[in-house]
Amino acid sequence: MTAEEFRITTLGKPLLDSPLKECAFIKEGSSVVYETDAAVLKEYVDRGEEIPAFEQAGPREKIFHDPAWSRAAILTAGGLCPGLNEVIKFLTLTLKQRYKVPVVYGIRYGYRGLNPAYGLSPLMLDEQVVDGIHEEGGSILGSSRGEESVEVCVDTLVRMNVNMLFCIGGDGTSRGAHAIAEEVKRRKLSISVIAIPKTIDNDISFIDTSFGFATAVLHAGKAVTGVHNEASGAYNGVGLVKVMGRDSGFIAASATMANPFVNYCLVPEVDFNLEEGEHALLPHLVERLNRRHHAVIMVAEGAGQKFFEEGKEMRDASGNILKKDIGLLLKERITRYCKEHNVEVSVKYFDLGYTIRSVQAEGSDAIFCGILAQNAVHAAMSGRTDMIMGHWAGKFTHVPITLATRARKKIQLDSPLWTSVKSITIF
Amino acid sequence: MTAEEFRITTLGKPLLDSPLKECAFIKEGSSVVYETDAAVLKEYVDRGEEIPAFEQAGPREKIFHDPAWSRAAILTAGGLCPGLNEVIKFLTLTLKQRYKVPVVYGIRYGYRGLNPAYGLSPLMLDEQVVDGIHEEGGSILGSSRGEESVEVCVDTLVRMNVNMLFCIGGDGTSRGAHAIAEEVKRRKLSISVIAIPKTIDNDISFIDTSFGFATAVLHAGKAVTGVHNEASGAYNGVGLVKVMGRDSGFIAASATMANPFVNYCLVPEVDFNLEEGEHALLPHLVERLNRRHHAVIMVAEGAGQKFFEEGKEMRDASGNILKKDIGLLLKERITRYCKEHNVEVSVKYFDLGYTIRSVQAEGSDAIFCGILAQNAVHAAMSGRTDMIMGHWAGKFTHVPITLATRARKKIQLDSPLWTSVKSITIF
Amino acid sequence: MTAEEFRITTLGKPLLDSPLKECAFIKEGSSVVYETDAAVLKEYVDRGEEIPAFEQAGPREKIFHDPAWSRAAILTAGGLCPGLNEVIKFLTLTLKQRYKVPVVYGIRYGYRGLNPAYGLSPLMLDEQVVDGIHEEGGSILGSSRGEESVEVCVDTLVRMNVNMLFCIGGDGTSRGAHAIAEEVKRRKLSISVIAIPKTIDNDISFIDTSFGFATAVLHAGKAVTGVHNEASGAYNGVGLVKVMGRDSGFIAASATMANPFVNYCLVPEVDFNLEEGEHALLPHLVERLNRRHHAVIMVAEGAGQKFFEEGKEMRDASGNILKKDIGLLLKERITRYCKEHNVEVSVKYFDLGYTIRSVQAEGSDAIFCGILAQNAVHAAMSGRTDMIMGHWAGKFTHVPITLATRARKKIQLDSPLWTSVKSITIF
Amino acid sequence: MTAEEFRITTLGKPLLDSPLKECAFIKEGSSVVYETDAAVLKEYVDRGEEIPAFEQAGPREKIFHDPAWSRAAILTAGGLCPGLNEVIKFLTLTLKQRYKVPVVYGIRYGYRGLNPAYGLSPLMLDEQVVDGIHEEGGSILGSSRGEESVEVCVDTLVRMNVNMLFCIGGDGTSRGAHAIAEEVKRRKLSISVIAIPKTIDNDISFIDTSFGFATAVLHAGKAVTGVHNEASGAYNGVGLVKVMGRDSGFIAASATMANPFVNYCLVPEVDFNLEEGEHALLPHLVERLNRRHHAVIMVAEGAGQKFFEEGKEMRDASGNILKKDIGLLLKERITRYCKEHNVEVSVKYFDLGYTIRSVQAEGSDAIFCGILAQNAVHAAMSGRTDMIMGHWAGKFTHVPITLATRARKKIQLDSPLWTSVKSITIF
Repeated sequence: MTAEEFRITTLGKPLLDSPLKECAFIKEGSSVVYETDAAVLKEYVDRGEEIPAFEQAGPREKIFHDPAWSRAAILTAGGLCPGLNEVIKFLTLTLKQRYKVPVVYGIRYGYRGLNPAYGLSPLMLDEQVVDGIHEEGGSILGSSRGEESVEVCVDTLVRMNVNMLFCIGGDGTSRGAHAIAEEVKRRKLSISVIAIPKTIDNDISFIDTSFGFATAVLHAGKAVTGVHNEASGAYNGVGLVKVMGRDSGFIAASATMANPFVNYCLVPEVDFNLEEGEHALLPHLVERLNRRHHAVIMVAEGAGQKFFEEGKEMRDASGNILKKDIGLLLKERITRYCKEHNVEVSVKYFDLGYTIRSVQAEGSDAIFCGILAQNAVHAAMSGRTDMIMGHWAGKFTHVPITLATRARKKIQLDSPLWTSVKSITIF
Repeated sequence: MTAEEFRITTLGKPLLDSPLKECAFIKEGSSVVYETDAAVLKEYVDRGEEIPAFEQAGPREKIFHDPAWSRAAILTAGGLCPGLNEVIKFLTLTLKQRYKVPVVYGIRYGYRGLNPAYGLSPLMLDEQVVDGIHEEGGSILGSSRGEESVEVCVDTLVRMNVNMLFCIGGDGTSRGAHAIAEEVKRRKLSISVIAIPKTIDNDISFIDTSFGFATAVLHAGKAVTGVHNEASGAYNGVGLVKVMGRDSGFIAASATMANPFVNYCLVPEVDFNLEEGEHALLPHLVERLNRRHHAVIMVAEGAGQKFFEEGKEMRDASGNILKKDIGLLLKERITRYCKEHNVEVSVKYFDLGYTIRSVQAEGSDAIFCGILAQNAVHAAMSGRTDMIMGHWAGKFTHVPITLATRARKKIQLDSPLWTSVKSITIF
Repeated sequence: MTAEEFRITTLGKPLLDSPLKECAFIKEGSSVVYETDAAVLKEYVDRGEEIPAFEQAGPREKIFHDPAWSRAAILTAGGLCPGLNEVIKFLTLTLKQRYKVPVVYGIRYGYRGLNPAYGLSPLMLDEQVVDGIHEEGGSILGSSRGEESVEVCVDTLVRMNVNMLFCIGGDGTSRGAHAIAEEVKRRKLSISVIAIPKTIDNDISFIDTSFGFATAVLHAGKAVTGVHNEASGAYNGVGLVKVMGRDSGFIAASATMANPFVNYCLVPEVDFNLEEGEHALLPHLVERLNRRHHAVIMVAEGAGQKFFEEGKEMRDASGNILKKDIGLLLKERITRYCKEHNVEVSVKYFDLGYTIRSVQAEGSDAIFCGILAQNAVHAAMSGRTDMIMGHWAGKFTHVPITLATRARKKIQLDSPLWTSVKSITIF
Repeated sequence: MTAEEFRITTLGKPLLDSPLKECAFIKEGSSVVYETDAAVLKEYVDRGEEIPAFEQAGPREKIFHDPAWSRAAILTAGGLCPGLNEVIKFLTLTLKQRYKVPVVYGIRYGYRGLNPAYGLSPLMLDEQVVDGIHEEGGSILGSSRGEESVEVCVDTLVRMNVNMLFCIGGDGTSRGAHAIAEEVKRRKLSISVIAIPKTIDNDISFIDTSFGFATAVLHAGKAVTGVHNEASGAYNGVGLVKVMGRDSGFIAASATMANPFVNYCLVPEVDFNLEEGEHALLPHLVERLNRRHHAVIMVAEGAGQKFFEEGKEMRDASGNILKKDIGLLLKERITRYCKEHNVEVSVKYFDLGYTIRSVQAEGSDAIFCGILAQNAVHAAMSGRTDMIMGHWAGKFTHVPITLATRARKKIQLDSPLWTSVKSITIF
């Protein structure tokens, strides 16, 4: 990495005094190093290179937008995630109470709400509207998937006189925010576009933690107890539990550590086989059943997708095509394999699915949402744009959208998390 | 009903003094009327008929079995249910601490544990073993389905000198207990066989409440909030949630009342159609989506089974046979119907499955388990047999197994529960 | 009891057809017997006496008030209780959606809201306002203690054209409702006054269950686990937990059964001593500490009040008067006694206080609230007045307010509940 | 800070090959910088100074102790904290399963268990014993406060042939561990002494997160909803909630952010007054009650201790000395002040006390416990001693005990946490 890649775009020089009182302003230039090993950092200096570091987030003494003339807009896009309402609440409170921004629009159903064709008028957000919403899961704005024309979106922002847009969403949403920021730049407008990363899979690069993930893990972990009870409550019982994680297995791995009743943790990052070959699950499972008479298997939805590419794996005992659900496939294959090998088995399948993402954020996760949202407002007010809010080495940071969306974060197989998972599971 | 049908079988006259001290003994002959309307009851008396009534449960002043010579055995069979461990704990404590029964066997994996062919040695239950188990879901004994030879089971009981057998389980388990009681009678043995009804569906006749049901409803109700969030968080979002209930929709109906975000409650007791005919779900749903842009559907697993009998309903868009899962079928059909009618829709499917039954019993439900188990011991000690523990009109009762297993209880469509559900849902 | 005491007052003959469709109406005259033993009931008939029985609650085919001309008012008074908002929600939904009553007032802060001197204008309740309130603890109407002039209250009802008043509250609230009903009768008005019993202590006579109690027990029971952990986590640790229950120990006894880690359960109904005399707690506790090194004590706030009447018990080691908090007194006395007897001890005191009453009702308790409220509306529409909603032998009932408020319900020491508590605790 | 202060002590050169397979070893010399601003770090290099940095935790390729000859001992001391059993579990699993250490002792009741005078024989810990304990709050080992003779403790370790001691506890426990490590050094023994910081107040310097804190905040945050309900459910209701935090207000501040219903957050770090002077609470509260009719106050137990030093503040209305409980004092003073100013008020006091610390760790907090414990074992096996496990900038670290216990961590008033709290509360 080079320091250059971490550079944040601004709309212009912040010249106005911040209206915040008694506030610990972050000095312009404050940063958070990308690498934290002292020896590595010394090498950069010794080579005469700038140390790669994120810009540190926080309130600035000088701001760019005049609050009295400002109009902010907030949207949520993509799937639900714990904490959406908490973020909306803190964006609104910070804009209205601290910066005295007079108008905060709540855009309905993601980018769709910026397209007048849908006829979705925005909510007017204020203290009364957001009071108590932090105790509700979901998003009071509604969410949606899919893209809208960037031109149409920017037209709407211009027509509504919006100069700060907060886009809460995943990869696609961030890319959409980047496209809007580019169009804004092309038109030489002064609209700050701030992305707030929402990924229940915690799979955004250059961001160590994203909101909602901890709550998802909390609930996934709790659910494992029931899975374990079903497994141990039956003779040769197998508790099989599927969690979200299309490309990254962070939830699966974390829930395994959070409630260490899991014996097999299957994630997209690690290859495995069923009947034969290296890391063959089924013979190993049978061996364990014979020895311990129960087992718990945690599987991320994106694990074992290769089995759907081979024709022979895609059909159940009746010859029906399975719908690419690795949980259902495993249930089917475990049952069939045990039958073929005359091993009694009772598979209980739990698909946690949306259960762990449609709840409110709580505890530390809720705190994270609150401070994250406050910092997003600070970033916008100071004129930052085309950036996404990050968190690194214990601090909130600013990250260029293009850097964050370059590649999806995956479990590092030599990380403490995965090393720990491996140490308490079978493979 | 006639009073005769409520008569309980005993092994013989109870002649020993109960070892219980300072105890409020239930007088022999105490009863709980089956019907509670004063006018109806007066008619029985006026006609010179005996009023049909359950024998009331509770400790008796005279007992049949000599505790010092007694050996009890406990088994759990069938699917898991909240409260199994609580019942095991209170059976054990009451036997050992109050009656000073020296030996309490925990039979492993249901009736299977009575068949020596499996080589499953029993657990020895005492205060230490059961301490803290009330905080665990599942069953420390393990459970299993399936029958064993009645002769073999009774042989084992005789060999182990067991004179009290507690069978915690559902319909099948109770029928098994009855068969054992009959064989015991045939051999002129003095073994009390007491069934303890376990049905998460609350579908046993002549028993108004069964343990674990309230906890299942508690968790199902809580889950509805997430389903509602997913529904309202998407444009034309449909939250679809499936709960247990193969023949009776008590959990579905109760969860609907417990968390009244549900718009459609589909149970086995009420017929419905999909595209046309009376109570056609899909046109109605589309109308609601157009009006309110979200809907929540609760479905019991046994609802709409007729759709699997007609060939045309059993295949999804790709022509694959659906696996008799009414939830998956509804998801498929809603999506297809909306597509055909050019209505955008986003269906989020929650299969609560085992989630609500693998937890511990809590609060009132746990209390119910405790007193139920104590009364089961009192019944056995007094020499009752071939009976199942019941609850009626606020009191614990004794019910002949043959009466309780005669027919499965279903939602009465004119009951307060269903009337209430209808009043807050669409049909 | 005589049948006469159960007679319900009505405003007049119900002559209008109910607007409810497809509804299982309860026949006028349906009843629920007060006693349920068949032999006892037969005696009444044999003696030629009417069987004492409650009128059964539920929708009637004929109603008294014309919905189109009706205006209902709802108030909550006294301390909080789980389920208040659920009751308010179902009263509102039933009035507006089923009977089409055009106006439902939410009176603020109890009877105070009926006194214009406070200037508290009522909320207008409808489906939108009550949507989602079932997920909030507390009362959206606010509550208060204290009385207002009955004349002023009735003046207000008349001025607002209210013909149905629902008073949700405890003993005092019900007495207030009775006074209003009497004044209404004196003035020959046609206002139905229906009390809905709210008592977290479950201490209203002739009512076997009141809403919110089960939720309070659920949370009190859960809390016991932490108390047990603190007790067993320290050498000679004593976990001391206080719960509500000024005159009746139902919560304490129920929580003890719900989470059987409790060793001593102290309730107002049972006398105990500290250092000497019968049932002396402290010597017994020391004996247990020496043997097991930890103990859990559950105490209802109303237990042991005699210690505050004797001067010597009211001061702590420093000579300060203790504020009549039995928990603090026990903490002080245990610590002092152990010190005097050279027994190490570490007392951890938990005052659950409002924690268990300020939460939402869930599961079966929420269902109870919903059906209770629906039946309260049915009672009012049919012209019943001066009555309180009850529950008996598994059915909802109508109870004359004067009967229900005659005496406070207390734990019967020979009841299954207390017998069970005694069987698992020390005294 | 200088780099020197971060230097970790070792027993000697690690020469043995680690038995861990497929493990991502941490290179000797890996570090985590104490400061993370790039410019600040560059200055160190430019000045020719070593960058102050913690040694990074994790498994080493070379170890010091021979596992086959090793005996480990684990103790927990001080007050309870969520996660104690999780830490014990992962210490045990890592020692026995990964390093194959044959003997792991569980020392009873803290350092007391090392003093033979108490006759407390240790538990033998293995996979069976620790299975499932992660679901229990408290400590299976028991805990205690107070010191034991260092010589006696080391004598015991020597007699038991222990070469690795894990001390889980707070400040005092860590100082005890340091004293043992010093005595070990004096006697030239080869015993690794590793402290694992347990502080529910999160107040240990040089450690950004300690286990259990997140769970405590989770539960404290949840409790605020009930406090808010009590406050808003009464006319001029004040909900007052006290949480742990003798010297640092981290729990109070975090719970305020986690559930932003709090209006006043009082912590030890910030001075406040009651009736007059700067930051006078009561006049402000009255103003708010007049305007909004309810308020929520969060107070850390260590806040406002100055009021107990002045004689006049220590007595209640009856002239009784208050027991230094800031919650009771505030309740008393609010009530009195409002009475004097003719403002109606209803104060509801919640003392969360031990409630939030006697629960199990869950979710991310449980994961933290697991990885922390694994790293503690890696540290011990590699021959580190006289150190405490830390966490900094997202990584686990080794910290000299003397550095960590030098000063207690307090809320920085210009930190994001406190700035955020100030932005949503009144002062």
